[in-house]
Amino acid sequence: MKGALLYEGKAKQVFKANGEAGKLVLSYKNDATAFNGEKKSVFPGKGRLNNEIASHIFSILQGKGVETHFIERLNETEQLVQQTEIIPLEVVVRNVAAGSITKRLGIEERMCFESPIVELFYKDDALGDPFINDEHALFLTNVTRTDLKEIKTKALEINRHLQTIFQAIRILLVDFKLEFGRLACGSIVLADEISPDTCRLWDVETFEKLDKDVFRHGTGDLLTVYQEILNRLEEQK
Amino acid sequence: MKGALLYEGKAKQVFKANGEAGKLVLSYKNDATAFNGEKKSVFPGKGRLNNEIASHIFSILQGKGVETHFIERLNETEQLVQQTEIIPLEVVVRNVAAGSITKRLGIEERMCFESPIVELFYKDDALGDPFINDEHALFLTNVTRTDLKEIKTKALEINRHLQTIFQAIRILLVDFKLEFGRLACGSIVLADEISPDTCRLWDVETFEKLDKDVFRHGTGDLLTVYQEILNRLEEQK
Repeated sequence: MKGALLYEGKAKQVFKANGEAGKLVLSYKNDATAFNGEKKSVFPGKGRLNNEIASHIFSILQGKGVETHFIERLNETEQLVQQTEIIPLEVVVRNVAAGSITKRLGIEERMCFESPIVELFYKDDALGDPFINDEHALFLTNVTRTDLKEIKTKALEINRHLQTIFQAIRILLVDFKLEFGRLACGSIVLADEISPDTCRLWDVETFEKLDKDVFRHGTGDLLTVYQEILNRLEEQK
Repeated sequence: MKGALLYEGKAKQVFKANGEAGKLVLSYKNDATAFNGEKKSVFPGKGRLNNEIASHIFSILQGKGVETHFIERLNETEQLVQQTEIIPLEVVVRNVAAGSITKRLGIEERMCFESPIVELFYKDDALGDPFINDEHALFLTNVTRTDLKEIKTKALEINRHLQTIFQAIRILLVDFKLEFGRLACGSIVLADEISPDTCRLWDVETFEKLDKDVFRHGTGDLLTVYQEILNRLEEQK
């Protein structure tokens, strides 16, 4: 199924899908990185967990009418997806204060935002993925004002669906990062992944962190908490 | 004329105006600070220069129909202004790339933006006046979405007037910082100052820097270049 390697990111490889024009194979790696690649490690099994979690979540979102690049999970670590031109923006949605925003704006961790906060970051490793505003996005990328409005509306809609999904498995969706891509027809769809690599997920009762923060801050075992998320999602099936 | 000291900032003191309800006296100091107060110096005569430059510019802007807090220059270092509740946002308008944006977004100094870029920073010394987006501003301050739209529209209108003013004296208006305040009636008006402390001003032919960057980077004499700006403005009278 896999053709030529098109791109290798920190957590995934992207291959052409042989004989399937306009489709790609995403292959989830076992690598974990944090702090803009400064901290690195390998967790055998991480690729499988994230592929299963992301496939599960993308399927649910599609069932709710959210357009995404996802087609199907192929095997333990691979997915078939629609080819998109990735928009070089990380779209972060925050329901509860954690991570960089607490230091930047002097907010206590755990503070709940009355309305979710949407932030844009420019995907550029050399610059450290800087936080930007709408006008920077218009200058740095090929998005229009209308695209930005659509991207933010979609991000907030996805937030509502994800909150429902995670609430059902007793998880507080603190914040998460999305990426969007443009299909050949021009439509903007949800791309990349949604997994404990890209979300902050806390147990609603104990506030235990069940996401990549356990690796960032060395406070727990990555594979154990990712497996816990997958188990809870599968219990719901 | 001066009553009680209400507030002391890095470059100005703010006094009640005796017998003038709803009015304040702004007193320009000779202090220069940079890098969030880390670099400091005193330049005897700087207060007079900035008071004269700011008074001159605010008078022109008012003549063009821009609502500001400015009433009149009282003496060498003092102005009478309307009392406003300062909105804790620094509104930066950039026509040409210089300063922080060049490093943050990897842009060459001197690159001209096709459309001016507007940025918001949250006025908070302890946090180092962080760069924020609209949603942060709505969360951190008492502005509404409508206020933000009005503030940005006003900032761009002021930019057009300032470009005309500076073009006439052979100065390139690279970027500048504005602050806005709310009058007792609720109207939002331009407040604070416009001076070589708050603008990047380059000679259009030589690109010589005629602003606080000469102090920030130790590349010239602050009083000489501020006097040059005042001289050129006064020649136009």
